[in-house]
Amino acid sequence: MFQIIFLLSLFLSISNAANQDFCVADLKAPDTPSGYPCKPAATVTVDDFAFSGLIAPGNTTNIISAAVTPAFVAQFPGVNGLGLSAGRLDIAAGGVIPLHTHPGANELLIVTYGHITAGFVSSASTVYVKTLKKGEIMVFPQGLLHFQIAAGKSGAVGYVVFSSASPGLQILDFALFASNFSTPLITKTTFLDPVLVKKLKSVLGGSG
Amino acid sequence: MFQIIFLLSLFLSISNAANQDFCVADLKAPDTPSGYPCKPAATVTVDDFAFSGLIAPGNTTNIISAAVTPAFVAQFPGVNGLGLSAGRLDIAAGGVIPLHTHPGANELLIVTYGHITAGFVSSASTVYVKTLKKGEIMVFPQGLLHFQIAAGKSGAVGYVVFSSASPGLQILDFALFASNFSTPLITKTTFLDPVLVKKLKSVLGGSG
Amino acid sequence: MFQIIFLLSLFLSISNAANQDFCVADLKAPDTPSGYPCKPAATVTVDDFAFSGLIAPGNTTNIISAAVTPAFVAQFPGVNGLGLSAGRLDIAAGGVIPLHTHPGANELLIVTYGHITAGFVSSASTVYVKTLKKGEIMVFPQGLLHFQIAAGKSGAVGYVVFSSASPGLQILDFALFASNFSTPLITKTTFLDPVLVKKLKSVLGGSG
Amino acid sequence: MFQIIFLLSLFLSISNAANQDFCVADLKAPDTPSGYPCKPAATVTVDDFAFSGLIAPGNTTNIISAAVTPAFVAQFPGVNGLGLSAGRLDIAAGGVIPLHTHPGANELLIVTYGHITAGFVSSASTVYVKTLKKGEIMVFPQGLLHFQIAAGKSGAVGYVVFSSASPGLQILDFALFASNFSTPLITKTTFLDPVLVKKLKSVLGGSG
Amino acid sequence: MFQIIFLLSLFLSISNAANQDFCVADLKAPDTPSGYPCKPAATVTVDDFAFSGLIAPGNTTNIISAAVTPAFVAQFPGVNGLGLSAGRLDIAAGGVIPLHTHPGANELLIVTYGHITAGFVSSASTVYVKTLKKGEIMVFPQGLLHFQIAAGKSGAVGYVVFSSASPGLQILDFALFASNFSTPLITKTTFLDPVLVKKLKSVLGGSG
Amino acid sequence: MFQIIFLLSLFLSISNAANQDFCVADLKAPDTPSGYPCKPAATVTVDDFAFSGLIAPGNTTNIISAAVTPAFVAQFPGVNGLGLSAGRLDIAAGGVIPLHTHPGANELLIVTYGHITAGFVSSASTVYVKTLKKGEIMVFPQGLLHFQIAAGKSGAVGYVVFSSASPGLQILDFALFASNFSTPLITKTTFLDPVLVKKLKSVLGGSG
Repeated sequence: MFQIIFLLSLFLSISNAANQDFCVADLKAPDTPSGYPCKPAATVTVDDFAFSGLIAPGNTTNIISAAVTPAFVAQFPGVNGLGLSAGRLDIAAGGVIPLHTHPGANELLIVTYGHITAGFVSSASTVYVKTLKKGEIMVFPQGLLHFQIAAGKSGAVGYVVFSSASPGLQILDFALFASNFSTPLITKTTFLDPVLVKKLKSVLGGSG
Repeated sequence: MFQIIFLLSLFLSISNAANQDFCVADLKAPDTPSGYPCKPAATVTVDDFAFSGLIAPGNTTNIISAAVTPAFVAQFPGVNGLGLSAGRLDIAAGGVIPLHTHPGANELLIVTYGHITAGFVSSASTVYVKTLKKGEIMVFPQGLLHFQIAAGKSGAVGYVVFSSASPGLQILDFALFASNFSTPLITKTTFLDPVLVKKLKSVLGGSG
Repeated sequence: MFQIIFLLSLFLSISNAANQDFCVADLKAPDTPSGYPCKPAATVTVDDFAFSGLIAPGNTTNIISAAVTPAFVAQFPGVNGLGLSAGRLDIAAGGVIPLHTHPGANELLIVTYGHITAGFVSSASTVYVKTLKKGEIMVFPQGLLHFQIAAGKSGAVGYVVFSSASPGLQILDFALFASNFSTPLITKTTFLDPVLVKKLKSVLGGSG
Repeated sequence: MFQIIFLLSLFLSISNAANQDFCVADLKAPDTPSGYPCKPAATVTVDDFAFSGLIAPGNTTNIISAAVTPAFVAQFPGVNGLGLSAGRLDIAAGGVIPLHTHPGANELLIVTYGHITAGFVSSASTVYVKTLKKGEIMVFPQGLLHFQIAAGKSGAVGYVVFSSASPGLQILDFALFASNFSTPLITKTTFLDPVLVKKLKSVLGGSG
Repeated sequence: MFQIIFLLSLFLSISNAANQDFCVADLKAPDTPSGYPCKPAATVTVDDFAFSGLIAPGNTTNIISAAVTPAFVAQFPGVNGLGLSAGRLDIAAGGVIPLHTHPGANELLIVTYGHITAGFVSSASTVYVKTLKKGEIMVFPQGLLHFQIAAGKSGAVGYVVFSSASPGLQILDFALFASNFSTPLITKTTFLDPVLVKKLKSVLGGSG
Repeated sequence: MFQIIFLLSLFLSISNAANQDFCVADLKAPDTPSGYPCKPAATVTVDDFAFSGLIAPGNTTNIISAAVTPAFVAQFPGVNGLGLSAGRLDIAAGGVIPLHTHPGANELLIVTYGHITAGFVSSASTVYVKTLKKGEIMVFPQGLLHFQIAAGKSGAVGYVVFSSASPGLQILDFALFASNFSTPLITKTTFLDPVLVKKLKSVLGGSG
């Protein structure tokens, strides 16, 4: 019994030292370049490490017939500092996750239902496209334009995992046509036709 | 036409510079601390970025009634340098992915069929356990002992994604009882009973 | 004298240990995720650390009336492993560096002649635009769409520095219209008009 | 004199800029994924960079006849952000630092008294064991199970240094038998005999 | 219209997730090992990403006939977390940026006016020196002693960019002769003559 | 028995995947920015992880009455990729490890015999000095000038550990007076007296 007390005192002193196995985000504190400050370890429970927000399909009744449901650090504080985050893709028949980039992360896609035609464009302007079936996985290197389309008539579902807790998401159409990017600057920097630009802005809500 | 030639020469000179969007592993070359040397970009095709090895269920007819199918850099060279890799867990009813660690990566689990009871032990010897249903995700911080068990009678399937192309996998029972770890050293460093150690070694094939 | 010999032997043994102040790229060896293997230190001279390729203005007689001259690791092997590279922007009056991203690096622009209107679009689709004069600097976070335009009638010159030896460069128009990205896939994933896509492909040389 | 004033004003303006040579931890502020916020530089003294807590031998009058004294960031705030921390091992004759891992760091051991038999188990279940004498050093890669035993009759002392300010410490026996890890889950995930598990829990204080 | 509302709700939910494209420093908050906490994104404007402090030449009427104007994170909060910062070198005829190191960053110099003789000393005590003309660039690996001198009669101007937002700057003469480094310790650790040390301290303001 | 075969086939397939617990340097292959390519795992033995070169005291019969014995990756290939290396300091009575920097690593000193007066100079030209006794540890941030002196009459011994496998070592006197740094450039960039420079060069073997 005497020995146990010694042992446990050893144990406790070591436990004090072992203070960063994880760093669940305190989203109310300001972010830092390495992620959010940690929630006190004493208040962390298993529910901080699990996330239920990807169980339900996203609503695909929209222009793109698709939905992206994020489990980034802002939704799932348990990924803070882990260099990982996730998302769920629901793509109805005919739907598309439009051309986009993740400025801060590589991506790995797992197809869990249906078929997805996915592709990305490299810096060397080579396009890599493949139609994936259930169970296949594909990677999309950081910062490159890529897309996912439901192939076939049944729609598709997939999970994406990122190499950052905060991968970012820049959808090309939103950057151009749902933003305050002025039409003269867009046409000057893209060669796109101003009539087309204005038309797409009217659909997507862009200003400027 | 003249202008196009100028433009394309610009384009080509820039393309030469843009030479590391990705680094598909040349597994025949020796590994480095940052990963394998890159396969020449000119020989890379979309098939280097996709992987079919997780489509088929693993064979669960074994002691643990479970299987881990890896898509680490050794199986899926496209993840080289991306800070990501994956795996598939098949767990039959009553099956278990035994207590293990990934020495070099954080893990994110996505349950895609059935229910999985998963947990990990922190440095402070707190155990975080939760039963996850289809669509739920959970994270397991780097280097900590963790496990996954099929909950319910139907078995379960999940995908795991790691924050490294080469996460490593140290299964506790294999480290102790399927290795050349000598029985005297095991009992000295774990308090385990030597009779038990020898018995488990005889089952798992350990020597020493 | 005797002491000097001792001292120098100390010195030499230490020098052997001090073997990675720098790692000038051996571009003939295969790249790795952390950069190219190092040229033998004994063959390195000061000319490996200096680069003259940005002295001369780029040729701006082209569609965009602008030129980007890179000093990435492929041109300037001395930046290998340093987390830095550079480039020169020459923009004639009316010229533009079209909308583009650097998938693997942050960018810092220094204006050295004339005025440059520069901007980027964030993941939240906010556009940050400013006209910079000589001596002003501006940063463009990794992976975000950005552009530079000569403001005023005299053209402009700037230097850009990146937070990677191999920042990559994805020019939006080239990715879409000078690549093998098929017109059906482009229109499906961007909402752009197929007539416009084909027209721009005919100018920029795209196929598919 | 006039020139000196100019020079010193230069000097002062530069000093203001040079504000992160170090980042001594403010342990009262919440931790972040990269470490603790910095104590104001003006309040930092040399005593923040030195640590006396490893001078005295640890108390080895306990079950394991050994003690680990940590100098992690929680004890020695000066290591914050430096990617280094330390500890002292005191192992009486017959004593043992039980099988454990450091989830977040590589380890380098320096033997300063006596002989230590040390070893680790790789992911491939190979055991690497060696008896080290005074002055010898050995490394233990991150996240792998390892141990240290006093070899010989005189006990041993060593210092360990880690590649992180907060390496973590997961002692296998404590994780299993001094935690709230339930006996059914332990036996399910380790093949260990429940009678043994309960016996060790009664010694080490585990619950569940 | 109905679809647009769906689309925009998708857009908004994604924007919430995409919260770390950048992290402009809140300099009033305490620094961390990865940089300063972020200013709230909603208060960030384009002026946070641009910096005018390098437009004006530094005052070179001083002992060294030169000036270094920093654009480190302390002056230019927009570089926080980007792994980049900058500075301007003004060197009058005969002027010199004295021997110094940047403890935490590699450096890239761009000469924009005149000629600069620049050099650094490696760990192997090899000196790499070169006279650069306008438009030439040169790199200086992290932590190594280096210098820049105006070559020719007209003075010179250059911009330097660093691989860290907070590169640090240790000027050898200031470290030795403008600090509280005691003369006995300096002479003991450098072999320099105490008479010389005291003379230089009297010029540069050192104590001790 | 049948089950064991299944289990072992699982085990073997996993082992193939678990291929980078460590990366012992193949010093004959060219270095890379992340370290040397790995020796084949099958040829690695425990002797690759242990190092005997710090057992014997260094020879202190020299000008500085001190010796630095390195265990960097060039001497101890087992530290490759681990972000750690070590060294032994032997300082006879009156001896000194002269002012120096490690361009690529933070340092942690452990005093194991005698007393050591150690100090470093910050970017802000503050000198932090302390006399350490046996068992005390002190850290020296990356790239800053620092020194160690035997305090007292008995000499001292210490071990140093670095946060890099290849920390580099730039000894100020060697950089200035044992190199090919020309006397005019030294005096121009340091304010040191040319007579003194030449005198020290004649002692230390510098040229130029």
